[in-house]
Amino acid sequence: MILTLNGDELKMNLKRVGNQTMVFANPPVILASYSVVGPKEGQGPLGQSFHTVWEDGLHGEKSWEVAESKMLQAAMQGAIDQISFPKEQIDFMLAGDLLNQIISANYAARQLALPFIGIYGACSTMALGMALGSMLIDGGFARNVLVGASSHHDTAERQYRLPTEQGAQRAMSSQWTVTGAGSVLLGQFGQGPRITSATIGRVIDYAIKDVNNMGAAMAPAVADTILNHFLDMQLKPADYNLIASGDLGRIGLGLACELLKQSGMDIGTSFTDCGVMIYDESQDVHSGASGCGCSAVVFAGDIMQRIKAGELKKVMLVGSGALHSPTSALQGESIPGIGHAVVIEG
Amino acid sequence: MILTLNGDELKMNLKRVGNQTMVFANPPVILASYSVVGPKEGQGPLGQSFHTVWEDGLHGEKSWEVAESKMLQAAMQGAIDQISFPKEQIDFMLAGDLLNQIISANYAARQLALPFIGIYGACSTMALGMALGSMLIDGGFARNVLVGASSHHDTAERQYRLPTEQGAQRAMSSQWTVTGAGSVLLGQFGQGPRITSATIGRVIDYAIKDVNNMGAAMAPAVADTILNHFLDMQLKPADYNLIASGDLGRIGLGLACELLKQSGMDIGTSFTDCGVMIYDESQDVHSGASGCGCSAVVFAGDIMQRIKAGELKKVMLVGSGALHSPTSALQGESIPGIGHAVVIEG
Repeated sequence: MILTLNGDELKMNLKRVGNQTMVFANPPVILASYSVVGPKEGQGPLGQSFHTVWEDGLHGEKSWEVAESKMLQAAMQGAIDQISFPKEQIDFMLAGDLLNQIISANYAARQLALPFIGIYGACSTMALGMALGSMLIDGGFARNVLVGASSHHDTAERQYRLPTEQGAQRAMSSQWTVTGAGSVLLGQFGQGPRITSATIGRVIDYAIKDVNNMGAAMAPAVADTILNHFLDMQLKPADYNLIASGDLGRIGLGLACELLKQSGMDIGTSFTDCGVMIYDESQDVHSGASGCGCSAVVFAGDIMQRIKAGELKKVMLVGSGALHSPTSALQGESIPGIGHAVVIEG
Repeated sequence: MILTLNGDELKMNLKRVGNQTMVFANPPVILASYSVVGPKEGQGPLGQSFHTVWEDGLHGEKSWEVAESKMLQAAMQGAIDQISFPKEQIDFMLAGDLLNQIISANYAARQLALPFIGIYGACSTMALGMALGSMLIDGGFARNVLVGASSHHDTAERQYRLPTEQGAQRAMSSQWTVTGAGSVLLGQFGQGPRITSATIGRVIDYAIKDVNNMGAAMAPAVADTILNHFLDMQLKPADYNLIASGDLGRIGLGLACELLKQSGMDIGTSFTDCGVMIYDESQDVHSGASGCGCSAVVFAGDIMQRIKAGELKKVMLVGSGALHSPTSALQGESIPGIGHAVVIEG
């Protein structure tokens, strides 16, 4: 049956549910994942789950920026190599990072030489890339898509805050930018966990202006995306084994729980945050971790490991981004946040 | 008939042609387009084709950055208002700009409150957004997608080069960043020109390090994307009425022609550049124009007008981006380029 309106064929959007959620007809498979981290992340509670741990953040390069791009490249190549995947069957590379003009991703893309789509979602980049990559595969535009994201403590510190060498004291509400890069290789078919749905977030701004409290700035957007996901899917948090935001830190996680409670949602005990998981309290990171690399490596390492082991059957990763810049902050603008969610089933 | 491999259903990628090109099964319609520009662009040869011309670049705001974001918001709202389109039927907003952390797009997205996908492709952003938006619609993930891109001479000048107030002399190979924002509203059905195919580019680097000659840095990527598009589609340049890159400027355009010629392709007389079209020589812009806003407003204004008038039947817009940052340039890195193409048929 073909429906038409004014002569144009009407297609039903069966892949779209509610206002913001996509349900994939042929859920893309996560064929491989790879994580590369710095020494501090390697010493943290998830250290054993990462594929490669660098001994120092410079890794023999002449600048931290070059090191970050090489780290992203290593993570993306790592995902390919892990299953000896034929590179010519990868149709797109999707990547982004925190640096101005996403140079880490651009230079990694130059080396990988794949058709490249640059994305910017601050710390939500990995989830955004996985959502977009899944749409490109499920939509029939790609057989396989390589997704990656990175951050680096020292490149972020000097770009967003103060020269690292200055050793300025950090606010207790601040989060420590992860030095790490994570990547997943998504495929149209094969064996592995599948991305079954995705929810693209809206920009939400609760007028937070404190750049040392990004968890508070992002929490409303994460809560909004979680609420909309469950509303769109007509499911409840208890249907998922793990709901991991990335990266709200301890303060932001508490605020997101509070906002969800105020909206009448009992998020339960399965809600945590990649920025809370990656370091332990003895590592002096204050409110937790942040950076595109944080949720990227926690997902590519620990979470993927637990899905594959059968410990987790259904996981929601909610990437959260603070969409300001040092310029907008200095001009007195507040910090808008965004949350993008992907659901992965083992 | 269902083909399977190891129990997994094999789908044919009928929407993908060759290595980098997508051919849309149900080509998305450009329902509306809108352009907002600054005074210099309004005085140029295409001045009459723009929908709104601002009298000055600050437009009553307290900073050029705020003005740029408002300009992008105005262009995107303009596309919606032009056909009084119901906003709740727009499923995604895709946008980007040149500013660090794409703040123009982020703050515009905050006001428009649509599910938002931030993209970064430097001056290729508009074409990248149109390509991605078309995939989201044709893939069945969206009914309608709003795409936009902006740049602002004064925000770009002080971020990438020198304080505007300094009035430094510009190199003859440099390009003038356009103050402008363009937007298109894409739909699954309706009346208007259609996006029939798209070619996603690879990052190409010919080791150009001169930040005052971005045309030279981007020309190889544009040539690569054009060559791959015609190879994938098994067509030739003469099949198109207009091939417009955006934005190579005069020097880059000449170099792209030369590279195509060396590769054995006769690009013919239909090849031009949005950065050459938007200003005339008396406007003292040296090699031409650049900035995400340039190809966005030339497409949303002049080119759309000529397609609708029936003057142009088949157009290829090749967005071109220089993927460096001031940091990477100061660290001695070369400037990688990328080109993304979309084909529009009247």
